[in-house]
Amino acid sequence: MKEYSKSKLNRIKRGQNRGTYDVEKINGILDAGFICFAGYIYDGKAISIPMAYGRNGDKIYLHGSQANRMLNALLEAKEASLTVMHLDGLVLARSGLHHSVNYRSVTLFGSLKKVENDADKEAALVCVMDQMISNHWDSLRPMHQQELDRTLVVEMTIETASAKIRDVGVNDEPEDYELDVWAGVVPLKMVAEKPISDEQLKENIAIPDHVLEYYEQHK
Amino acid sequence: MKEYSKSKLNRIKRGQNRGTYDVEKINGILDAGFICFAGYIYDGKAISIPMAYGRNGDKIYLHGSQANRMLNALLEAKEASLTVMHLDGLVLARSGLHHSVNYRSVTLFGSLKKVENDADKEAALVCVMDQMISNHWDSLRPMHQQELDRTLVVEMTIETASAKIRDVGVNDEPEDYELDVWAGVVPLKMVAEKPISDEQLKENIAIPDHVLEYYEQHK
Repeated sequence: MKEYSKSKLNRIKRGQNRGTYDVEKINGILDAGFICFAGYIYDGKAISIPMAYGRNGDKIYLHGSQANRMLNALLEAKEASLTVMHLDGLVLARSGLHHSVNYRSVTLFGSLKKVENDADKEAALVCVMDQMISNHWDSLRPMHQQELDRTLVVEMTIETASAKIRDVGVNDEPEDYELDVWAGVVPLKMVAEKPISDEQLKENIAIPDHVLEYYEQHK
Repeated sequence: MKEYSKSKLNRIKRGQNRGTYDVEKINGILDAGFICFAGYIYDGKAISIPMAYGRNGDKIYLHGSQANRMLNALLEAKEASLTVMHLDGLVLARSGLHHSVNYRSVTLFGSLKKVENDADKEAALVCVMDQMISNHWDSLRPMHQQELDRTLVVEMTIETASAKIRDVGVNDEPEDYELDVWAGVVPLKMVAEKPISDEQLKENIAIPDHVLEYYEQHK
């Protein structure tokens, strides 16, 4: 098992039994999503902004407009922290403070650089698209040079990371199991509904197989 | 319409057409969730951590262990920024860079203080619980004083905020509508599955009505 090394940055202190540094598990959590929360410092304050990402090995790609305030602040700091979380359920215990949620979350720490080369930029954008929906890029109108020029692409190399996973039932105080209080889990999940074709779609264009596949896998 | 005042902190620069400062809309987005991402600065780095929250008017309540690294860092900073996001769909355009997501997100900025008084602490914890699932607190074993003592409760007064909402279809380049490329939206939503009673539940305890109601409203 390959693990990220522990430092004061990523070491899990609260709920250590839920923590893992396992690279494969962390990649699994990253690959189950495509929206991360990036932390950045603006005017001395830490702000969390949701962003699309793509992962390829130990690299994470972010993109935005060349003027994007957050991406430019991150590039200036040369490092960043990204968090991804999937909510899997409400854990309803017999007492208030034993309530919890089931979830999978990852926090990544790494160094950042701007991707300058056009081919590398395009590959990063394909990676971000693949993270959202597989096999989609090649079905689209090819990118214009001007679009690529206007886009800022940032590469993060993951240097360390940790994940927390809670996927069990209720944990109550031993004496509380005797109470006449209901307890249990309400599973939650993100689902896709049927794809809705654009109203201005040209006639006779069917929903592509890879989009239908996405729907089947997420419905 | 009551609006938050705009400052350099909360003014929306990218995608202004999606932005709003409307207090009622912002509260609606907050009340549709119970997990926020709090930004905090640790070792000079901005880290985003998912946390449960409760809203009551212009107050947001967070809680954790008295030793919680993030809550203590936030209290020391006396201010915080919290972000809540709901993902509502994939927006699949005819070209890569017009891809987007439908979403509702809010970023709050405010001042923080520790809630010291026991009655206020309990009221805040009830608020956090209500945000997760309504009408639940009174069905539980009453809180022990020791549990309350071990819990750190933080109150944020929302000072300013902004929201971004995207809830429309594809926006492509005018000339791209003639292409033989499919475009459309795949709606996404978080759903609840049937409540699963704890394996160690005493016999003859039914799932409470308010839990079944939660399931019916979210299935």
